[in-house]
Amino acid sequence: MNATIIGLGLIGGSLSKDLKARGILNHVVGVDANATNASEALKLKLADEIKPLEESFNTDLIILAIPVDAIKKMLPEILNRINPKTIVIDTGSTKEGICYEVRSHKNRNRFVAAHPIAGTENTGPSAAINNLFDHKVSIICEKELSDKDAIETAAKLFSILKMKLIYMNASDHDMHLAYISHLSHISSFALGNTVLDIEKNHKNIFNLAGSGFASTVRLAKSSPDMWQPILEQNSENVLKALDAYIQKLEQLRKLITEKNSEEIHRFMAEANEIRKILENI
Amino acid sequence: MNATIIGLGLIGGSLSKDLKARGILNHVVGVDANATNASEALKLKLADEIKPLEESFNTDLIILAIPVDAIKKMLPEILNRINPKTIVIDTGSTKEGICYEVRSHKNRNRFVAAHPIAGTENTGPSAAINNLFDHKVSIICEKELSDKDAIETAAKLFSILKMKLIYMNASDHDMHLAYISHLSHISSFALGNTVLDIEKNHKNIFNLAGSGFASTVRLAKSSPDMWQPILEQNSENVLKALDAYIQKLEQLRKLITEKNSEEIHRFMAEANEIRKILENI
Repeated sequence: MNATIIGLGLIGGSLSKDLKARGILNHVVGVDANATNASEALKLKLADEIKPLEESFNTDLIILAIPVDAIKKMLPEILNRINPKTIVIDTGSTKEGICYEVRSHKNRNRFVAAHPIAGTENTGPSAAINNLFDHKVSIICEKELSDKDAIETAAKLFSILKMKLIYMNASDHDMHLAYISHLSHISSFALGNTVLDIEKNHKNIFNLAGSGFASTVRLAKSSPDMWQPILEQNSENVLKALDAYIQKLEQLRKLITEKNSEEIHRFMAEANEIRKILENI
Repeated sequence: MNATIIGLGLIGGSLSKDLKARGILNHVVGVDANATNASEALKLKLADEIKPLEESFNTDLIILAIPVDAIKKMLPEILNRINPKTIVIDTGSTKEGICYEVRSHKNRNRFVAAHPIAGTENTGPSAAINNLFDHKVSIICEKELSDKDAIETAAKLFSILKMKLIYMNASDHDMHLAYISHLSHISSFALGNTVLDIEKNHKNIFNLAGSGFASTVRLAKSSPDMWQPILEQNSENVLKALDAYIQKLEQLRKLITEKNSEEIHRFMAEANEIRKILENI
């Protein structure tokens, strides 16, 4: 099977590495709007050759691994120009807006709306790693709007990536991800900025930072190019999750102000329940 | 050197393991108010014997590794009863309140107010591990109020633990830790509760959780017994840090509501600066 991968960063590059190493992809054409990334990706063998998009349609499979605003913009044009048998799979972290954009496209049936939930806080071709997707979850939305062969191919690819596949509607996907992923990123970005601000006046504060801070603030290293459009495309759900989060913080704030030891303790003990859940991740 | 370690959980137990393995402690008497913990600690060889506190004063060194409210309560009584040559070191995550409590105690000079900044999200004797403190930072406050030999012994212990030692006043310590540690815990506890709440109505949401969520929420597993008194003893600084954090979240909330792509991007790009700092942790 041959493929064109659009976007050779963390996700696109890692997909290329594993799908080639595991024998399902023979030849990968890479497309990357950023010339530096494109040449780095070629050097790292994330693609066999780099081509402009307009010369990359003659392929079995097109994978979109670019920011969700770019997916939304490019997908209709790609569906206009594909061969009848080509399958297009996206990997975006939001699904409702993207699915809506192509809902009545004449070639909607060749598109599989997917979200392989994997990643690190790193960015660009050099962030691509083997085994990134192993034992993670991948979601396919609006299965019923894709051709059977397209879904079968996508399922096969995710199975080769050792992912657990879940089918779900796009609106549930976006709501769940707002809580389970997008809110984590927001809390880390805000934590990073809070501590960077105070550090301006108190140099060397970071000498005291331990592994707990590093873990909590890790996602603040994530790519703004990827995350700004995710928060905007999923703004309705994200704002609900963020409001719920601020409310929890205000609740704890009040308890600390009131020196309500018992309720502060209970707040934390309740959060401890996350332990059971994390064991299953 | 012989020692009494009061509290044989994550910190006390890990101190015992390394200080014995590295040859500086010959005999450790363990004191733990929780009988189950005490017997587990003995089984795990975190102490050579378990004794009641009142029989544990005849020793070279007393280490306090219990919640900060318990340290504040027990420390004056311990200083009342120690031998003239015994050194008392605490390991509490707050320093101002503890130091204030014994500021005019006749044996203040035998006390070293310390905070070895290390830990995991786990609790109790079974959480004790080797090498927990290696290459981390330890802080000593109010050095000038401790006898020279007491500071020298403490410095030697932290050096054997391979820790970088920093001297600092108690009020700076508490302010810095509020931002660099206590706020991380608050953000995790609140994130845990936010997502647990929504999960009540949407089962299986956690199927979708990835490693990013796991990292951000990790500290929500921390012990309420340890953390409730930390937030209370450091409430003034903690509230300032929490207000600054909520303000950042509100700022991002506003930008998302306004669909201000450019400023959302800038907010994240600023937070990315944390990358440089994390490299040094």
